[in-house]
Amino acid sequence: MDKVELNELLRQVAEGSISPEAAALQLKTAPIREVGEYAKVDMHRGIRQGVPEVIYGSGKTREHILGIAKTMLENGQKTVLVTRISEETADFVREGLGGTPLDYNALARTAVIGEKPVPTGVGTVVVATGGTSDIPVAEEAAITAEVLGNRVTRLYDVGVSGIHRLLSHMDEIMSARCIVAVAGMEGALPSVIGGLADCPVIAVPTSVGYGASLGGIAALLSMLNSCASGVSVVNIDNGFGAGYMASMINHLK
Amino acid sequence: MDKVELNELLRQVAEGSISPEAAALQLKTAPIREVGEYAKVDMHRGIRQGVPEVIYGSGKTREHILGIAKTMLENGQKTVLVTRISEETADFVREGLGGTPLDYNALARTAVIGEKPVPTGVGTVVVATGGTSDIPVAEEAAITAEVLGNRVTRLYDVGVSGIHRLLSHMDEIMSARCIVAVAGMEGALPSVIGGLADCPVIAVPTSVGYGASLGGIAALLSMLNSCASGVSVVNIDNGFGAGYMASMINHLK
Amino acid sequence: MDKVELNELLRQVAEGSISPEAAALQLKTAPIREVGEYAKVDMHRGIRQGVPEVIYGSGKTREHILGIAKTMLENGQKTVLVTRISEETADFVREGLGGTPLDYNALARTAVIGEKPVPTGVGTVVVATGGTSDIPVAEEAAITAEVLGNRVTRLYDVGVSGIHRLLSHMDEIMSARCIVAVAGMEGALPSVIGGLADCPVIAVPTSVGYGASLGGIAALLSMLNSCASGVSVVNIDNGFGAGYMASMINHLK
Amino acid sequence: MDKVELNELLRQVAEGSISPEAAALQLKTAPIREVGEYAKVDMHRGIRQGVPEVIYGSGKTREHILGIAKTMLENGQKTVLVTRISEETADFVREGLGGTPLDYNALARTAVIGEKPVPTGVGTVVVATGGTSDIPVAEEAAITAEVLGNRVTRLYDVGVSGIHRLLSHMDEIMSARCIVAVAGMEGALPSVIGGLADCPVIAVPTSVGYGASLGGIAALLSMLNSCASGVSVVNIDNGFGAGYMASMINHLK
Amino acid sequence: MDKVELNELLRQVAEGSISPEAAALQLKTAPIREVGEYAKVDMHRGIRQGVPEVIYGSGKTREHILGIAKTMLENGQKTVLVTRISEETADFVREGLGGTPLDYNALARTAVIGEKPVPTGVGTVVVATGGTSDIPVAEEAAITAEVLGNRVTRLYDVGVSGIHRLLSHMDEIMSARCIVAVAGMEGALPSVIGGLADCPVIAVPTSVGYGASLGGIAALLSMLNSCASGVSVVNIDNGFGAGYMASMINHLK
Amino acid sequence: MDKVELNELLRQVAEGSISPEAAALQLKTAPIREVGEYAKVDMHRGIRQGVPEVIYGSGKTREHILGIAKTMLENGQKTVLVTRISEETADFVREGLGGTPLDYNALARTAVIGEKPVPTGVGTVVVATGGTSDIPVAEEAAITAEVLGNRVTRLYDVGVSGIHRLLSHMDEIMSARCIVAVAGMEGALPSVIGGLADCPVIAVPTSVGYGASLGGIAALLSMLNSCASGVSVVNIDNGFGAGYMASMINHLK
Amino acid sequence: MDKVELNELLRQVAEGSISPEAAALQLKTAPIREVGEYAKVDMHRGIRQGVPEVIYGSGKTREHILGIAKTMLENGQKTVLVTRISEETADFVREGLGGTPLDYNALARTAVIGEKPVPTGVGTVVVATGGTSDIPVAEEAAITAEVLGNRVTRLYDVGVSGIHRLLSHMDEIMSARCIVAVAGMEGALPSVIGGLADCPVIAVPTSVGYGASLGGIAALLSMLNSCASGVSVVNIDNGFGAGYMASMINHLK
Amino acid sequence: MDKVELNELLRQVAEGSISPEAAALQLKTAPIREVGEYAKVDMHRGIRQGVPEVIYGSGKTREHILGIAKTMLENGQKTVLVTRISEETADFVREGLGGTPLDYNALARTAVIGEKPVPTGVGTVVVATGGTSDIPVAEEAAITAEVLGNRVTRLYDVGVSGIHRLLSHMDEIMSARCIVAVAGMEGALPSVIGGLADCPVIAVPTSVGYGASLGGIAALLSMLNSCASGVSVVNIDNGFGAGYMASMINHLK
Repeated sequence: MDKVELNELLRQVAEGSISPEAAALQLKTAPIREVGEYAKVDMHRGIRQGVPEVIYGSGKTREHILGIAKTMLENGQKTVLVTRISEETADFVREGLGGTPLDYNALARTAVIGEKPVPTGVGTVVVATGGTSDIPVAEEAAITAEVLGNRVTRLYDVGVSGIHRLLSHMDEIMSARCIVAVAGMEGALPSVIGGLADCPVIAVPTSVGYGASLGGIAALLSMLNSCASGVSVVNIDNGFGAGYMASMINHLK
Repeated sequence: MDKVELNELLRQVAEGSISPEAAALQLKTAPIREVGEYAKVDMHRGIRQGVPEVIYGSGKTREHILGIAKTMLENGQKTVLVTRISEETADFVREGLGGTPLDYNALARTAVIGEKPVPTGVGTVVVATGGTSDIPVAEEAAITAEVLGNRVTRLYDVGVSGIHRLLSHMDEIMSARCIVAVAGMEGALPSVIGGLADCPVIAVPTSVGYGASLGGIAALLSMLNSCASGVSVVNIDNGFGAGYMASMINHLK
Repeated sequence: MDKVELNELLRQVAEGSISPEAAALQLKTAPIREVGEYAKVDMHRGIRQGVPEVIYGSGKTREHILGIAKTMLENGQKTVLVTRISEETADFVREGLGGTPLDYNALARTAVIGEKPVPTGVGTVVVATGGTSDIPVAEEAAITAEVLGNRVTRLYDVGVSGIHRLLSHMDEIMSARCIVAVAGMEGALPSVIGGLADCPVIAVPTSVGYGASLGGIAALLSMLNSCASGVSVVNIDNGFGAGYMASMINHLK
Repeated sequence: MDKVELNELLRQVAEGSISPEAAALQLKTAPIREVGEYAKVDMHRGIRQGVPEVIYGSGKTREHILGIAKTMLENGQKTVLVTRISEETADFVREGLGGTPLDYNALARTAVIGEKPVPTGVGTVVVATGGTSDIPVAEEAAITAEVLGNRVTRLYDVGVSGIHRLLSHMDEIMSARCIVAVAGMEGALPSVIGGLADCPVIAVPTSVGYGASLGGIAALLSMLNSCASGVSVVNIDNGFGAGYMASMINHLK
Repeated sequence: MDKVELNELLRQVAEGSISPEAAALQLKTAPIREVGEYAKVDMHRGIRQGVPEVIYGSGKTREHILGIAKTMLENGQKTVLVTRISEETADFVREGLGGTPLDYNALARTAVIGEKPVPTGVGTVVVATGGTSDIPVAEEAAITAEVLGNRVTRLYDVGVSGIHRLLSHMDEIMSARCIVAVAGMEGALPSVIGGLADCPVIAVPTSVGYGASLGGIAALLSMLNSCASGVSVVNIDNGFGAGYMASMINHLK
Repeated sequence: MDKVELNELLRQVAEGSISPEAAALQLKTAPIREVGEYAKVDMHRGIRQGVPEVIYGSGKTREHILGIAKTMLENGQKTVLVTRISEETADFVREGLGGTPLDYNALARTAVIGEKPVPTGVGTVVVATGGTSDIPVAEEAAITAEVLGNRVTRLYDVGVSGIHRLLSHMDEIMSARCIVAVAGMEGALPSVIGGLADCPVIAVPTSVGYGASLGGIAALLSMLNSCASGVSVVNIDNGFGAGYMASMINHLK
Repeated sequence: MDKVELNELLRQVAEGSISPEAAALQLKTAPIREVGEYAKVDMHRGIRQGVPEVIYGSGKTREHILGIAKTMLENGQKTVLVTRISEETADFVREGLGGTPLDYNALARTAVIGEKPVPTGVGTVVVATGGTSDIPVAEEAAITAEVLGNRVTRLYDVGVSGIHRLLSHMDEIMSARCIVAVAGMEGALPSVIGGLADCPVIAVPTSVGYGASLGGIAALLSMLNSCASGVSVVNIDNGFGAGYMASMINHLK
Repeated sequence: MDKVELNELLRQVAEGSISPEAAALQLKTAPIREVGEYAKVDMHRGIRQGVPEVIYGSGKTREHILGIAKTMLENGQKTVLVTRISEETADFVREGLGGTPLDYNALARTAVIGEKPVPTGVGTVVVATGGTSDIPVAEEAAITAEVLGNRVTRLYDVGVSGIHRLLSHMDEIMSARCIVAVAGMEGALPSVIGGLADCPVIAVPTSVGYGASLGGIAALLSMLNSCASGVSVVNIDNGFGAGYMASMINHLK
C-alpha cells in the first residue's frame, strides 16, 4: 500500500462507501512483514503515526536487531531508533548496514540509524532529573524525543532537596509544552514541577537508589500518589516511553 | 492581583525589567488565602492555568468543604468541582451556598458548583472502560474533563476479552485527541487501545476485582508494563487525575 | 510389573476382588527405584500416564542428570525430556549415554533423549507469544508438547499492542484444541485470545520486562485476573508446565 | 443471525469464498446488543460456544442484573447463571422475571435462571476441598460445572494434613476427567492430587486463612509452584473460572 | 526509691563503689509496679527521663487505661498523656479519676490528664503537614511535644505541589530547633524541608491517600529514600513517636 | 478399632507379619467418620497421639461445630477444645450438648468442652508477651497448652523496650521446658528470650500494631530472622499452633 | 569460671543466698572474650547449654573465622561448627589451626573443627526433603544435628507430588523424635508429614524454585499456613536453625 | 558571597529591610556552580550549615567525583567526604587532586579528602551494631560523624540474642548524646537500646541476612515498629544518613 492507495482508501471513508472500522483494519493488517520467524514488523506505522520506527533492543540477538532494521530501511523507513543496545551490538549493526550511518550514545544506550529528523513538534520538551545518576534514563527520553522531531531542553541535577536549583530554572519550566521529570530515590521531582508548571508532566521513576528504594518502586509509588494535577507516570527506567509520550503531546496541533 | 496587574507584570517580563523567575514566584505567592487554620487556598490558579478550581473532598469535613468553596466563589471563581463527596455532604454544601447551583452525580460522587463551562478544548476526549464496574471511576474522569471544558465521548464495557466490542468503535478511537482508558482486573484495555490509536492514552487502573487483583495493583502493574507506546498511567481509581491530564492535553494549541 | 501384570491387576479391580485404592497404591508404590542417594525415580509413570519421562535439569549436577536418564532408559523408557539444561551439560550427557541420540535446543534449553514420538494428540496445540523475547519460554512449551505427542502450531510476536497481528491468525486460533499463550510485560495476550477462542487457554507469564514487571509478577497477576473465561495460569517462565497441561488436554478422548 | 445463516457462513468458509478471519469477525460482531448504556451483551455466545450465559453479579445493581437477564432470555437463552449474587438481589430478580424459575444457592451465592441442562460432558468433574471452610468456593465451581452440563462428584474436607482422607477416595480421583482442587491456607491439595491423578487439575486458591495467608496469596503461590505436572491455577476464590475451565475440558471430544 | 536514695546511688557511682551498669540496672528494676495482671508500669521513668508518662490507648480496655493512669498518679506522676483514645473512653476515665482534670482533643484523639507542663525545651518545634487530611496525625505530634514541655509552631497544608506555600514560611523553618514533617500520598514534604532547614527533620508518613498509596507505604518509602540529609523517619501515622523524638532533641543542652 | 485390636495390630508389626507402612495406614484410615457432608472427623487421633480433639471454629457454622463436637463426644473423646469461637456460638453449643460442661474464655475466644485433663507434661510451659495487647493470642496458647495437659506460667507485658521487666523473671525463663514468646510490632521478644533460655522457643507474631506492622508481617519477618538459636515460628496470631507445639515438646520423655 | 566455681554458684542459688537472676547474669556476663575488635565470643555457652560452638561464616573474613575458632579452641571448646563457609576458606582455616582436624562438606558448605561428638540425643532426628535440589539445605541441618550429638536419618526426594515415595517410609516417620522437613517450590512437605507423624516437625523453606517461588517466600508462606498441628518454621534455607532446634528437642529428657 | 556580604544580608533581615524568605532564597540561590553538565554544586552549604561537603559516590564516574571534589576544594572547602567509593576510584581521585591528602577506608568504602576537623560536637555519639557483619555500615556512620566533628564510641557485636554483651556497656549507653544503632536480620537492637538510653536513637537497618530478611526489609520494618520511644529510622544500609543526623543532633546547643 503506497501513498496513492492510502489516499484512495481515505477518500472512500470520507464518501461513506467504506466504514472507518473496515478502513482502519485494512490499514493495520496490510503491511505486516514477517522477519525470519522471530518478528512481525509493521511497515506502515511510520506513515500512519508519523513517527520513525523503534526497535526495543533488550532480549533480542544482534542478528535479530540487524535483520529488523534492514527490513525497515528496505521498506522506506528513513530513521530507526534502537533502545537498550550495547556498544558491541551497535558496532555489529553499523557494519551490517553497509553505508547507512548509525549514531551510538553510550550513556543512553541508544543507536540512531539513518538521518535525524528536523524538529516538527510545536514547542519544547523539557527533560529534568533529580540527580546525576538519573541522567542515563533522562538521555534515553531526550534522544527519543529528538529522534521523533522535538526540540529538547535538559535540566539535570535539580532535585527537590535543594529546591533553589529548580526555582532558578522557572523560565524553562514555564515555557515548556511538555515536561519529562526523571527521578529515583524519593521521586518527588514530578510533584514539585507539576505544581509549578502549566503543561503536562510525564513522570519517570528510576531504579537509582538502594535499600528501601526497592529498585525504583519507592519512586514509582511516590509519583503515582503525586498530589499535583497534570502528572502521569510510565514504568521504572522507561525513558523511551516518556520521550515518546512527550513527543506525541508536543505534536498535537 | 487582577487582570490589569497581571498584564503589567507580564509586560515587565517581556521588557526584561523583571526576571521570569521573580515574576512567576510573585504570581504564585500573592493570592494564597488561608481558610480557617485548615487550608491555604490559591486564588489565582484559575486565572493562571485557565481552569476551574477543584476540591478533593475525601478526608475533609463538610464544614471545611463549604468554607473552601465559599472562599473560592467570593474570590471570583465561577465553577468549582468537588470530587469524592457523599450525597449528604453535597446537600449540606448546596444549602450553605445559598443560591449558587450545585449539581451532584451519585455514580461519580462529584459535585459541580456554579455554571458549567462551554467546551474550549481542541478535540474530543474519549473515556473508555473495560467493564460495567469501572464506570464510577470513568464518570469521575468524564465529568472532570467536561467541567474543564472538553467534549467527552463515553465508550463503556468494551473490555479486551470481547475484542469485537472495541473494534466496532474504531472511528471514535481514531478521531479522539486524547483517550482515558479505565480498567480493573487484568488492566489490558490501555495496551490494546494504545496500539490502535494515534493519540496519547491515559490509563486508569481501578480497584475492581478480587483476590490477586490486590485492590487494583494487578491492573496498575499491567498498565505500567504496557508494550504500546503513548500510554502513561495515573493512580488506582484516580478518575480525576486522568480527566485533568486529558483536558490539559486537549487544550494544547 | 509389566503389562501382563498390569492387566491382571486391573481385572481384579473390575471383579471387585481388590479395591481400587489398594490397586492404585500397589501400582504407584512398586516401581520406585533409587538412583544413588539423591533421587527416587518412578519407573512406571510412562506406562501409567502414557507419557515420556521428564527430568527437571535445574539444580541437578550433570552426573545426576546422566544417572537418572540412564536408569530411565535401562528400565524401558524410550524418550526422556530434560528441561533447563545447559549446552555443556547436554554434551556431557550425550557422551555418557553412548549411542542413544540426544537432540539439544539452545533456545528452549531442552534436550530430547531417544526417539521422538509420533503425534497421538487429538488436535493441534497452538503456542502463541506476545513478543520476540518470550520465544524461549514458548519453545520450551512447544517442544514439551511435541515430545509428548502433539502437533504444534507456533504464532510468535502477536502481542495485543498490535491487535491486527493476532486477528490475522484467527483460523489457527479457532481450530486449536488447546492454546498456550505466553507473554511478559503486561501479560494481556491470554485475555484477548481467551475471548476469541472456544478452547482451553493455558497462560504462561514470562519474566520478560523491567522495572514494574517485577520479574514476571505483573504478567502473572494480569493473567490471574483475566476477565475471559476458560483461562488458567502456570508459574512464571514455566513453559514445560504449560506444554504438559496442553498435551494432557489434547489427549483427552 | 440464526442457525441457517450460521451454517451458510460456515459453508462459505469451507468453499474458500470467505476467509476464516472475516467469518469469525462477522460472527463475533453481529449479535452484540446494548442493554441500557451500561452493558454490551453478546447474544450468540451461547450458540457459538454451546454454553449458557453467565452474569458476574458483583458490582452490578439488581436492576442491571435483571435487565441483562431479561435481555438474554428474550433473545432465546434457556439458562442463565448469575454468580456472586446476594439472596435479596436473587429474590428481586426472581420477582422481576415473572414466571421463569430461579434457583438460589446460599452457600455458593449463585442463582440459576431457567432450566438446568442435562449433562453433555464426556466424563465426571471432581471438585475437592482441603477443608470445610473452602466449601463455598467449591460449590461455586460445582454449580457452574453442573449448569454447563457436567456430572460433578464432590470430595470435601480431604486436606493433605490428613492424607488418608484423600487416599480413601482414590477411585473417584482416578476416574475423573478433570479435577478442581480447592484449598486455602497452605494450598497443598492440588500438588498431591496432581501427583495421584492422570487428568488435568485446576487449582483454586481460597482466601480461607489468616495472618500469613495474606488473603489467599500464600495458597496461590503454593499452587503456582506445584511440582506436580498437569496443574494450572485460577484467581483466588474464582470457583466460577475453575468450573468453566473444567467444563470446557470435559466437553472436548 | 525516692530522690534521696537516688542521689545516694549516684554518689556511689561517682566514688566508684558501684559500677554504672549495676546502678543503672538497679534504677531500672526497682520501680516496676504490676497493675492487675495486665500491665507492668515503670514508676521512675518520669524521674529518670524527665518526662510525663504516656499510655498507648489502642488495644486496651477503658478499665485498663483508668487503672494504669490511677496507679501512675498515685505514684506521684503529675501529667499523663493517653494517645489513640476515643471520646467515650476519655469520658469514662475522666469520671473515674475523680477530681483530676482530663483534657480531650477529638482531632488528635489524645487525652491529657493532670496539669500541662510549662515549656522547658530549648527552642521551637515546628510541625508541618502536606495537606489538610494529615492534620490529625500532626496534632498528635504537636500535643505530644507540648505535653513534654515544648513550644510548637504549626504549619499546615504546605505540601510540595504548591511550593510557594512552603517558601512563604521560610522564617519559621529556619528558626526551628527540630521539625516534624507530616505527609501522606507522595510523602515529599520532608525532602524539601530537609533541603531548606538546618535542623533535624523527623518525617511522619500518614495513611492518607488511596490506591497505590498502600495505606501509607508509598509515603514511608519516599521518606526513607529522601536525598536530603538530616531526615529520619518514624512509623506510618506515628505522630506520638515524632513528637517524642522532637522533644528529646529539643531538650538537649 | 479398640485398644485390643490396636495391640493385636502392633504385635503383628513386631512379628514382621505386617509391614509398618501397612499398619500405619490401617490405623489412620479406619476411624474416619463423616459428619454430615461437611466434615471428616478422625476418631482415633486422641488415642494415637494422646491428645484431646480440637475444632478450629473460624469459618464453621454453629450447627457444624455442635455436630462435630457431638460426634467426637459420642465416640469417647473426653475433652474437646474449640478455638476462634464467639460467645454466642459457645452458648449455642453448650445448650445443644445437654449436660456436658463448656467453659468459655472471652479473651482467648476458646471453649473447652468436657473435663480438663490433669497435667501430664514433663515440665512447665512459659507463655510470655511483649505487651498488654498481645494477651488474647497468648491466652489462646496458654489454654491450648493447659487443655493438652501442661502446667503453664504466664509472663505478660515483658517487652524488650523495658528489658529489666524481662530480666526480673530470669528464674521462670531458666526453668521452663518450652517457651512460647508472643509479640507484635517489632517482634523482638523471642530473640532476647532465645538468647537467655536453654530450651526451645516457639515465636508467635501478632497482628498488634499499625502502619508498617503490616498486620503482623513485620513481627513475623523479625522472628524468622532471629539470630538466636533454638527459635522457630508459627503463623501470625496462631496461639493454638504454638500451644500445641509446646505441649508436644513438653510431653517428650 | 570453671566447673567448681559454677557448682558453687548454683549451690548459692539453691540456698537462696543469691537470686537466680543475679546468678544467671553473672553466668552470662563473665566469660565474654573480645576477639580483636570484631567479635565478642561467649566462652561458657558450651558448658551452659551443652552444645559445641558455632560460627556463622557468611559475611566474615577468613582471618576472622580463624581467629574466632582459635579463641574457642584455646578456651577448651572441643568441637566447632562453621556454617556457610567456602572450600577455600575452610582450607585456609585448616592450615591456620595447625594439627586440629577440620572436616569440610562441600554440599552443606560446613566445616567441623575438632572431634565429632558421640550421639547424646534421646532418639532419632529425621531430615526429609521434597526434591533433590533441597539436599544442600537438608545436609546443613543434618550435619548440625550430628555435630550437636544426634543420630540422623535422611529421607531425600520424597515430595508430595509423588506421595507414595513418602508413604513407603512410614516407619522412619513414625519412630522419629523430631522431624526436619525441607522443601522449596510449593513447600507442602511439612503439612503432609505433620499429619502423619506424632512428633514435632521443624519446617525449612528453601529458595529452590523460580518465578512465583519468590526466592523461597512461597514455600515459607505455605509452611506458616500449614493446617497440620505440631509444625513450626525457620527462615528460608536455614538448615542450621532447624538442626539446632531439632537437637534441642531431641535432648529433652 | 563572602562572610562580609553574608553579614550585611543578615543585618538587613534584622532591620526588617529584607524579608527572611527573600534573604534565605538569595542565600540558597547564589552559590550554585555547575560542574560540567552533570552536577550543580552548592558552594555555600558548608558555611550555611557548618558542615564539610559530601559526595555520594555511587552512580558517578570517577571523573565526575574528581571534578566535583576539585570544584569544592577550589571554592574553599577544607574537607570533603566521599561515600560509596571503590578503592580504585579513590586512588584515581587521590592522584588527580595533586597534593591534597585522601584517606581511604576499605571497610566503610569512604574517602576523606583534606584535613580532618577537630571535634566540635557537644557530647559523644555511640555507634553500636548487632553483629560483626553490620560493621561496614556502622563504620560509614562513624566516619561520617567523625568527619563532621564528633567524638565517636564504637560498640560492635552487641546484638540482642546475647543481651549481656549489651548490658555490660551500660555506661557508654547512658552517657551518649545520640546513639546510632545498626542491625540486620531481626533488627531488634534499637528497641532494646531505646528502652535503656535517655537520648535520641537513630536506627539503621542493614541488608545483612538471607531469605526472609528480604535485603534488609525485615530489619527496617522491625525498627519502624519499635515500641521504644525516641527511635527514628533511616534507609537500609544508610550509615551516612545516620551519622549525619547524629552529628546534627550532637551539635545542637
